[in-house]
Amino acid sequence: MDAITTNNGTIYFDDEAYYKLRLHLKDRKYSKVFILVDENTAQHCLPEFRANMGGKFDFKAIQIKSGEIHKNIETCMEVWKQLSDMNADRRSLLINLGGGVITDLGGFVASTFKRGIDFVNVPTTLLSMVDASIGGKTGVDLGVLKNQIGVFNNPEMVLVVPDYLSTLDKRQLNSGFAEMMKHGLIASGSYWMTLKKVDSFENLDKHIYESLKIKNDIVSQDPKEKNLRKILNFGHTFGHAIESYSLEDNNLPPLLHGEAIAIGMILEGYLSNRIIGLGMHQLEDIKAEFTKRFDKVDFTDEDVEEIVGLLKFDKKNTRGSINFVVLKRIGDTIIDNKIPKELFQEAFSYYKD
Amino acid sequence: MDAITTNNGTIYFDDEAYYKLRLHLKDRKYSKVFILVDENTAQHCLPEFRANMGGKFDFKAIQIKSGEIHKNIETCMEVWKQLSDMNADRRSLLINLGGGVITDLGGFVASTFKRGIDFVNVPTTLLSMVDASIGGKTGVDLGVLKNQIGVFNNPEMVLVVPDYLSTLDKRQLNSGFAEMMKHGLIASGSYWMTLKKVDSFENLDKHIYESLKIKNDIVSQDPKEKNLRKILNFGHTFGHAIESYSLEDNNLPPLLHGEAIAIGMILEGYLSNRIIGLGMHQLEDIKAEFTKRFDKVDFTDEDVEEIVGLLKFDKKNTRGSINFVVLKRIGDTIIDNKIPKELFQEAFSYYKD
Repeated sequence: MDAITTNNGTIYFDDEAYYKLRLHLKDRKYSKVFILVDENTAQHCLPEFRANMGGKFDFKAIQIKSGEIHKNIETCMEVWKQLSDMNADRRSLLINLGGGVITDLGGFVASTFKRGIDFVNVPTTLLSMVDASIGGKTGVDLGVLKNQIGVFNNPEMVLVVPDYLSTLDKRQLNSGFAEMMKHGLIASGSYWMTLKKVDSFENLDKHIYESLKIKNDIVSQDPKEKNLRKILNFGHTFGHAIESYSLEDNNLPPLLHGEAIAIGMILEGYLSNRIIGLGMHQLEDIKAEFTKRFDKVDFTDEDVEEIVGLLKFDKKNTRGSINFVVLKRIGDTIIDNKIPKELFQEAFSYYKD
Repeated sequence: MDAITTNNGTIYFDDEAYYKLRLHLKDRKYSKVFILVDENTAQHCLPEFRANMGGKFDFKAIQIKSGEIHKNIETCMEVWKQLSDMNADRRSLLINLGGGVITDLGGFVASTFKRGIDFVNVPTTLLSMVDASIGGKTGVDLGVLKNQIGVFNNPEMVLVVPDYLSTLDKRQLNSGFAEMMKHGLIASGSYWMTLKKVDSFENLDKHIYESLKIKNDIVSQDPKEKNLRKILNFGHTFGHAIESYSLEDNNLPPLLHGEAIAIGMILEGYLSNRIIGLGMHQLEDIKAEFTKRFDKVDFTDEDVEEIVGLLKFDKKNTRGSINFVVLKRIGDTIIDNKIPKELFQEAFSYYKD
């Protein structure tokens, strides 16, 4: 597949990806190369990465604990200290090999170490391939609040190698697939139709490519999320709150990002229907599709109240009002909608039905 | 004094400063305004600031502990959390009212909160007026290593109000004055001559202005410190190491930044003499001037060894070699000089003599 040129840096695929990275290393003459991994990617991805980079490739690995709960400043401190202890300097490179936690956190660590060193993202999960690896968002969570601390900064390049997906279980793939379906909902009705027919995750290459093109198209028009880019947040206002809440100590099972935003998309689909008249038929289509792919989560009234309480921390909010992205129809989106709180309960009722 | 236009944002002086900030607030319609202070500026500067901003000025203060030892990620965490708890959003403004710790840390906190909110710097110490308030460097220390974590980002504006200097003691003023003398050494022999004659800190306005012009001239040509800007680091390679070391638990008194770089400038002046032939007469002039203004510090052999050991963490280093800025003559500087380690001991001997 052809490389995709983004605002800052390029996305390369498969074998070309390794080749281009080798060229880049030769060209830039980095003083040292570090690879950030977690215990999963250290075991399942690093050997393949190293093999593909060839024998002369010299690097030091830095390992952190896997999982969203470690995507915080404490983990950044550990990585900064290790970089410092291993004499990383401003001409060093950090390669982030892993899922969204690794690319988001690693991107932030690199962007702030000695006021910024180069980094390269090698996403290894479906979610990070289609979402976290592109768009220049880096960051970590602050307590339960997702991505509260971060900067906009772009990797030198992104390597998308779908081979790494073979290390993932079905649940992980499903989670990433939810983001891809979101790309259809917000920007392309025909892509949504295509994805609906996907019932195996064996060969996702061309769909990954399509998702990346859609996302790149959006973020290149609005890199700092002033306007258009906000459409990528469809399903994420509730989705982030549900994800955060599910990771706290309560009755809910801890949800993956895609599992949470799948629910968020049903809830915000409902709001779309009530606020700007998304057709009932399309709303039902969205609900049917996500409930087919994801188990229903059983929210109590208390859960709903807590989740609604978390909405006020959403980064898109301004002046105390909660801003939602809503669908006019599948493939067409409207940003900055203020929604009366009364509808929140209704949306959950619709989800539960 | 006329405003100075920088690459990103403007420096305003005295009464015009408050006026311009009021206009800016009116224009931008920030959702909320926060002011970062420490216990000193909360008491000695905030009342004056508030009085000058007028009765309609509505803000929330966030207070941190004063001192370089609190310029770390833990303090950032506190400020991020307070911003979050007080519902700061992306349309909020942070005003940093204080010395270099407040402007460096506050700039970093603002640059990373929700991937970046606007900030304004109001330096209240001489050091922060002539140095930290300009040039887009934000950051915090990592353990004893100074400014290891940070980003390049510029405030919306900088307000320089020399009235705040009346709250400082002689030692603080002296510390800031060392940075001003550095501006003479690296870029203007005539300014160095002028400053040598200053024996009272009563009315520094026009000297502050001159220092800001010199620094702005340099950083606007090289905002990311690729080349020219490095000359601002004269005296700082040893200076930072000495400052860091003096704050640890040992025999040395804790030194202020300017006190440490004054020593650094003598040491690096000596290296300049040995490496590129800075004239002995000029070297003696530098030493005489700084030893007149600052008490000699009594370094043991062990101190020297420890300080030399810290040099390897300097952010300017690449590929393991320690890069120094040296003077060809007073007012003329050469960057990226690799200095044999044997000369480090000699430099300290020269300082002690």
